[in-house]
Amino acid sequence: MALTRIGLAGLAVMGQNLALNIAEKGFPISVYNRTTSKVDETVERAKLEGNLPVYGFHDPASFVNSIQKPRVIIMLVKAGAPVDQTIATLSAHMEKGDCIIDGGNEWYENTERREKAMAKLGLLYLGMGVSGGEEGARHGPSLMPGGSYDAYKNIEDILLKVAAQVPDSGPCVTYIGKGGSGNFVKMIHNGIEYGDMQLIAEAYDVLKSVGKLTNVELQEVFSKWNKGELLSFLIEITADIFGVKDDKGEGYLVDKVLDKTGMKGTGKWTVQQAAELSVAAPTIAASLDSRFLSGLKEERVQAAKVFKSGGFNEILGGDRPVDKAKLIEDVRQALYASKICSYAQGMNLIRAKSKEKGWDLTLGELARIWKGGCIIRAIFLDRIKKAYDRNPELSNLLMDPEFAKEIMDRQSAWRRVVCLAINYGISTPGMSASLAYFDTYRRERVPANLVQAQRDYFGAHTYERIDMPGSFHTEWFKTAKQSKM
Amino acid sequence: MALTRIGLAGLAVMGQNLALNIAEKGFPISVYNRTTSKVDETVERAKLEGNLPVYGFHDPASFVNSIQKPRVIIMLVKAGAPVDQTIATLSAHMEKGDCIIDGGNEWYENTERREKAMAKLGLLYLGMGVSGGEEGARHGPSLMPGGSYDAYKNIEDILLKVAAQVPDSGPCVTYIGKGGSGNFVKMIHNGIEYGDMQLIAEAYDVLKSVGKLTNVELQEVFSKWNKGELLSFLIEITADIFGVKDDKGEGYLVDKVLDKTGMKGTGKWTVQQAAELSVAAPTIAASLDSRFLSGLKEERVQAAKVFKSGGFNEILGGDRPVDKAKLIEDVRQALYASKICSYAQGMNLIRAKSKEKGWDLTLGELARIWKGGCIIRAIFLDRIKKAYDRNPELSNLLMDPEFAKEIMDRQSAWRRVVCLAINYGISTPGMSASLAYFDTYRRERVPANLVQAQRDYFGAHTYERIDMPGSFHTEWFKTAKQSKM
Repeated sequence: MALTRIGLAGLAVMGQNLALNIAEKGFPISVYNRTTSKVDETVERAKLEGNLPVYGFHDPASFVNSIQKPRVIIMLVKAGAPVDQTIATLSAHMEKGDCIIDGGNEWYENTERREKAMAKLGLLYLGMGVSGGEEGARHGPSLMPGGSYDAYKNIEDILLKVAAQVPDSGPCVTYIGKGGSGNFVKMIHNGIEYGDMQLIAEAYDVLKSVGKLTNVELQEVFSKWNKGELLSFLIEITADIFGVKDDKGEGYLVDKVLDKTGMKGTGKWTVQQAAELSVAAPTIAASLDSRFLSGLKEERVQAAKVFKSGGFNEILGGDRPVDKAKLIEDVRQALYASKICSYAQGMNLIRAKSKEKGWDLTLGELARIWKGGCIIRAIFLDRIKKAYDRNPELSNLLMDPEFAKEIMDRQSAWRRVVCLAINYGISTPGMSASLAYFDTYRRERVPANLVQAQRDYFGAHTYERIDMPGSFHTEWFKTAKQSKM
Repeated sequence: MALTRIGLAGLAVMGQNLALNIAEKGFPISVYNRTTSKVDETVERAKLEGNLPVYGFHDPASFVNSIQKPRVIIMLVKAGAPVDQTIATLSAHMEKGDCIIDGGNEWYENTERREKAMAKLGLLYLGMGVSGGEEGARHGPSLMPGGSYDAYKNIEDILLKVAAQVPDSGPCVTYIGKGGSGNFVKMIHNGIEYGDMQLIAEAYDVLKSVGKLTNVELQEVFSKWNKGELLSFLIEITADIFGVKDDKGEGYLVDKVLDKTGMKGTGKWTVQQAAELSVAAPTIAASLDSRFLSGLKEERVQAAKVFKSGGFNEILGGDRPVDKAKLIEDVRQALYASKICSYAQGMNLIRAKSKEKGWDLTLGELARIWKGGCIIRAIFLDRIKKAYDRNPELSNLLMDPEFAKEIMDRQSAWRRVVCLAINYGISTPGMSASLAYFDTYRRERVPANLVQAQRDYFGAHTYERIDMPGSFHTEWFKTAKQSKM
């Protein structure tokens, strides 16, 4: 048998689909899984989906030996210990110059640790973010490979073909940078995804709870939105969701889905990294908090009882008539403006980390590879790419002249929607966090002077002045008491 | 010379003050510092402040040997490596049964690591949060000792006298729990402190920017507030601050303080732990983000220019007349309601960690020891103590009948203030985050059903249903396309 071009270990759905995708693009691929039935399943699928060149192996040695040198093996296994185990299994049979690629949502520091350990064995290592879910993996994901540049070059031809292809901007893959940068960028991508999903959920909530839109109307609205500046995968699937009837009862399925959101860790990491990097990311944090609070279903049911009794009126806005068309347009603008703030936060997180680690990441190029394949793919990302192309040193996406103008044009609607929600007693944590972010960022003077004065009062932390350089400390207590006498 | 009762190493201002406090309560104390001039300075102060029994030592051996057995030494040195160095220096001269207490703002895991290392040497270890700043250290701090219970018992007599004394509720100290629980509780205390300071700053901002209150008026308002339910150290010092004239020019000092807030890490840790523990703490997170954004002074100055041009009107509310008295009362209520949410978050963080670590912490008792000495001391904490006394299993402070009623009574004012700020284009991130927290928590049905449907659509993450048990997956894409056909 001739040697294959590449190998893939870990054949859950994502792994299977990526292997089939690679084979379909003309690269013979060896596949391996510890539970061997998955190997046979994959080979079977390869036959059914067009006799694709997928070769299955039941033991790691023959799997590794079936691949041409320098060997490249992509792992798609659960982050953490399973990755270490798979590396141990595979590397035992690999040789100097061979490469292992982790395609999972791994914590970037684990990738850096492994890259160093691999280097000692003469092996190359990449941590490659893969976005696009099962569909993306099968038909073209967005790929974020980081780590050894030599390793990247060895498989660039494959990645360029396997990745999603976007007209006018090419394949959704680029060499991200050194170390764990590929994982880090994928992590922030997911944080942004959390933000997008939360903002869409809030738009849905306002339209449904205040505007009383039906699922049919919601589907129409989101379909329409998907033809304009909000055009994106997440808006598209949202429109689809409103159209799905319940297969187990009356009405629409979305109304039967329990309001509890699960999560897998990358949103949490994003929020923790934001704190670590001293970068404000309140919209992404609000989306994480909303998932946490969604999980407290039983507590919420109890709280709803307590806070409805005692004269509390759920609809504080009363029965004021709502202009539906106006509301829909306001919500659309609020969603868009909030989204700009959320992306500004995500991009700033990447820049801060890039600076800290010396990764030298190119923000515009990241926006480009997110234009297709991944969950946050959107026409909007082309605008972000262009903003960073215009000014790679842009301090904040809000400061790009085009985005600045868009925000200004939409802020009245944005403020109306947030206040409307507040007055109806429903929450729009993501939209309000974005708005507070915008209003803080665009403010020359914030009340932090008082906080710093407090810190100097009780902790002698000193303060700076607006009118002269230097660091000052005042005996506030004594001075205040003296002036009282 | 007779042996002293206790030792203290690390004689920056906090250390000096705590040593003098201990001596003043009748416990002869040995003091040591690597830079020996600090030792002499402390001894000199002890003389001047009433011939207090403070004995200085210039070398660690004679310092340690001057203390009666079992020896107890409190360290007040910078968290991290300096603590390890001080432990190494001191423990070399200590004996089985002796104890070291870290009084710094240490990361709780470091304390747990050290406690284990000390145990191997037969030494006891405590991580003790100390709050109250320099004044508290000198005249009565709030103390949060965690770790070895035997070690706590050895110095309980000292701590009970050294801590702040609150009429009707005793000394502000209690044995917190095992391991790093003392540090963890102090960390959350600081996170709550961040929240309080931010909420006060927002109240100040609204009163000043919208209500156009002068510093004289602000001082009056905060002094008046300090006589009611908001009575607290932070409100008191805020009133003081508004009364301090600029010693370097015209007007009031607070107006000359640069609007950049520093920070030292405990707020960051609190936010990171919230994410780790899956507990929503948006008010505390908003206060951290506000500090981050305050640091971007130059960017804010630029942004203010961009977002004022192009027809943007700073005062979106226009020149509508503001009823000052009404505004002040609304802001007071908004501040109080927001504060309840912030404390609810902090207490839930402690409970979640206590559960995870098996610390078995008593929330009411923590509220009790925060009633005096510490930065967040407030009459309000007595209410919290009583709420947890009434129901130790209280799922959320908001659900306590008294707090629930207070929130309900204040929510109209609260909503008015946040919307007013939004319409004036100023930000109240802490108050809005609190409000969104409240409105999410008290909602039986949140739009998380849509988010979960999206996750199931693109990632097959499955969902639960409201009307039957089980875990479900739907081929949303196929179903939606079919219904379109």
